[in-house]
Amino acid sequence: MSEILVVGSLAYDSIETPSGKVDRALGGSANYFSLAASLFSKVRVVGVVGEDYDQKDYDLLNNRGVDLAGLSKVPGKTFHWAGSYEGDLNEAKTLKTDLNVFADFNPQLPEHFKDSSFVFLANIAPELQLQVLEQVKSPKFVGMDTMNFWISIKKDKLIDVLKKVDLVLINEGEAKMLTGAANAISAAPLITAMGPKAVVIKRGEYGFAMYTKDEGYFILPAMPIPTVVDPTGAGDTFAGGFFGYLAAQKEVPTIANLKQACIMGSMMASHTIQDFSVKALAKVTLGDLEKRLTEYKKVITV
Amino acid sequence: MSEILVVGSLAYDSIETPSGKVDRALGGSANYFSLAASLFSKVRVVGVVGEDYDQKDYDLLNNRGVDLAGLSKVPGKTFHWAGSYEGDLNEAKTLKTDLNVFADFNPQLPEHFKDSSFVFLANIAPELQLQVLEQVKSPKFVGMDTMNFWISIKKDKLIDVLKKVDLVLINEGEAKMLTGAANAISAAPLITAMGPKAVVIKRGEYGFAMYTKDEGYFILPAMPIPTVVDPTGAGDTFAGGFFGYLAAQKEVPTIANLKQACIMGSMMASHTIQDFSVKALAKVTLGDLEKRLTEYKKVITV
Repeated sequence: MSEILVVGSLAYDSIETPSGKVDRALGGSANYFSLAASLFSKVRVVGVVGEDYDQKDYDLLNNRGVDLAGLSKVPGKTFHWAGSYEGDLNEAKTLKTDLNVFADFNPQLPEHFKDSSFVFLANIAPELQLQVLEQVKSPKFVGMDTMNFWISIKKDKLIDVLKKVDLVLINEGEAKMLTGAANAISAAPLITAMGPKAVVIKRGEYGFAMYTKDEGYFILPAMPIPTVVDPTGAGDTFAGGFFGYLAAQKEVPTIANLKQACIMGSMMASHTIQDFSVKALAKVTLGDLEKRLTEYKKVITV
Repeated sequence: MSEILVVGSLAYDSIETPSGKVDRALGGSANYFSLAASLFSKVRVVGVVGEDYDQKDYDLLNNRGVDLAGLSKVPGKTFHWAGSYEGDLNEAKTLKTDLNVFADFNPQLPEHFKDSSFVFLANIAPELQLQVLEQVKSPKFVGMDTMNFWISIKKDKLIDVLKKVDLVLINEGEAKMLTGAANAISAAPLITAMGPKAVVIKRGEYGFAMYTKDEGYFILPAMPIPTVVDPTGAGDTFAGGFFGYLAAQKEVPTIANLKQACIMGSMMASHTIQDFSVKALAKVTLGDLEKRLTEYKKVITV
């Protein structure tokens, strides 16, 4: 088993959906990612929190064996995001973003993090993604995510990061925005042309579309979930399940492994959306995943 | 092989998409359906056209062995629809609807149509769907489509039709509108609760979700098509491929047949969208479908 280094946000989220609302519940890409990935592999977190960060939120990851040596606590408040979802829950409306301690985030890797084999650069400023990547000695497999904000204001820097990664995990809307393509299918090869060998386009309730330079498209639907309580963190959970599965395999990622990783990410994300914040995700066991996978196979089997 | 009776529109469409435009090109649900279904099975059309309906458009179906005895030509002009698509082409903007001869459509079945085993009630007024169904003696399998217009103004009548059919093929947006559900997954069982044993929700570029009372969900993505030229008729083509395949099987539709029918409908629709009007569809051969099916299986195979 190889270690996965993740850099991303640790946050408190205030979320409203048709199912209800939560105030300052645990969130952030690094939290969702780590909870998902740690079911399969050792995870190392690089991030920053404020003085208000709750001990039980540290413990949640500590208890899963996640290495928090790269998590600094600094004066000030933890990153806070407030958003709401309506109707089909496909898009969040951001009500408030308080960067707080995240505004001066300067990611420094503890010495023992620098030999990490797998690296996931969650959605943070492209310069910081590069800064982290430069500190890792010889990663075996590097993935990244991004968002519309960075595509609109730091596209050049973002393209520099794209050149250095093996895989991009990105939302459908952001894949179209990044490439100017009309749909995910035409966006995918334009993204791999920017550098990465593979791209996984996350399509929310519709599942995912992976495209690899070597093998083309691999596309499957999402697990059917009648009631989506809160879609926040589904994409980061997908990435966590994906990387957790990959890092637990013996070989350098093969196409077959990448396909299984997509499915594992998708199964994991199908849990996250069934409750607010990390509530459902934190309870998922390998047994739950196995069971859902069996149901899923029935759904997609001809 | 059993005969399929289809009632629907025969039209001339004026369409504009990012790929270009066509004026008064052949369209209408019955045309798309018949072209697709006739690759597999005998098709009988019930519909109405005006004096401007071109002989070559009759010939297109005649040459495929489609029985046009139920197609009446009456004084006036053929139904005309004008629409445009933008961006991701997921939704048509209707610019003009001239019902013309369609306004007084009074579907009467020729005597030899009344023993049809398979019936497809394409998107027309629910009363007319019922009127057609009442003239068929003992159909083995009946399917229907509908649209937002009928859901908003004739929902009660529509629900009467739903009680009498085996299967509904419906767009995702319309499935949500009909049921008030937030997504296709929760809409599906609400639709089968209205009567039909099965519902196939058409999700455009995302594929389809079938739900049957007996076996639950069967969901697959669409064939990846990088450049969608014109999505008009994709849903009717899906229905045509679906029914054409079903009617060509020996057994009364089984779950396994319904699943294959979905895939066949989807492969057929993936051709339709690659050119304007029926241009691509009219050229598709069983060999083309076989080839595309092989490519598709590669895309969805783990």
